[in-house]
Amino acid sequence: MNRIITISREFGSGGRTIGREVAQRLNIPCYDHELIDKIAEESGFSKEFIRESGEYATSSAWFSNALAARDYHGHTTQDQVFFAQSRIIRELAEKESCVIVGRCADYLLRDKADLLKVFIYSDMQSRAERIVKLYGESADSPEKRLKDKDKRRAAYYQIYTDMKWGSHAHYDICLNSGVIGIEKCVDILAQLY
Amino acid sequence: MNRIITISREFGSGGRTIGREVAQRLNIPCYDHELIDKIAEESGFSKEFIRESGEYATSSAWFSNALAARDYHGHTTQDQVFFAQSRIIRELAEKESCVIVGRCADYLLRDKADLLKVFIYSDMQSRAERIVKLYGESADSPEKRLKDKDKRRAAYYQIYTDMKWGSHAHYDICLNSGVIGIEKCVDILAQLY
Repeated sequence: MNRIITISREFGSGGRTIGREVAQRLNIPCYDHELIDKIAEESGFSKEFIRESGEYATSSAWFSNALAARDYHGHTTQDQVFFAQSRIIRELAEKESCVIVGRCADYLLRDKADLLKVFIYSDMQSRAERIVKLYGESADSPEKRLKDKDKRRAAYYQIYTDMKWGSHAHYDICLNSGVIGIEKCVDILAQLY
Repeated sequence: MNRIITISREFGSGGRTIGREVAQRLNIPCYDHELIDKIAEESGFSKEFIRESGEYATSSAWFSNALAARDYHGHTTQDQVFFAQSRIIRELAEKESCVIVGRCADYLLRDKADLLKVFIYSDMQSRAERIVKLYGESADSPEKRLKDKDKRRAAYYQIYTDMKWGSHAHYDICLNSGVIGIEKCVDILAQLY
């Protein structure tokens, strides 16, 4: 059975960077942007659409979900992205050991692989500094952007997994990257693997 | 400033054992039962009373708290234990680097010491097996005993800190001892320190 590290993360916590560095250290692939490319290729949806709707509920998810256009199976386009990415994540996990960032992989692969389920989080201030450094300023304050992203990510997770995102009970290890530092998080995860 | 490891833990997760072994590895003291002795000595309350009321709300805490006998400052005996243990924990933290297990030390020492705030948890089954092995069977199922202890510990924490016990945001690292194993938890914490 392949050994997979799944990384869930708060926006701006550096979870993606940690995933990438752990994978490099262990010499296994890390699926993040690559996953979006694959899903786009197989599903026909645009990368931009997948990036957003494969991990974030729309701002008023429950409401818009009720009104959204549906195919004749009753599925929205967001559902279709979820099905495509579920299938691809399961195929990847069967093929090889790897790191998968986000996209409910911890939920999708439960009982399907030997998982190390990681949650990366950090305090608001460290995350705010990080997103401004990485993505620049915008009209909204970094705090507002973070809260909005976290809320939509949590809603997405809840819709498709029926579990509470970010509750420690779903994970094997939760690391505060703001306190521990990205490099030490990488050390710990590479050692645990 | 002394460096303190505070360990919050779900009942039966092995948090106390982990605290003790980390302290041994780092050659610093671990305060757990010793804390109870100190509080008993200074406060005059019995060790048994402190063990229970210094970390667990009574089964119907809010209700009984409303009815409890109070001193002329309006404090219950449980409040008095909390004040005594708060004072002792702060004194210890000023004196030396150490590991402190439970008793809201993470909250009491915020901004007072260089803290590594740890939360240890585990799945219900591993914890149930552990408490039966350590404390034997009882009339109640292990699951019922665990839920009751966790609930009362969370209520105690909420009453005295006004924060949610076990929410990852309060901690620097959260470890699932059932998956990671006690020894590896000790390794990680000793290295992080």
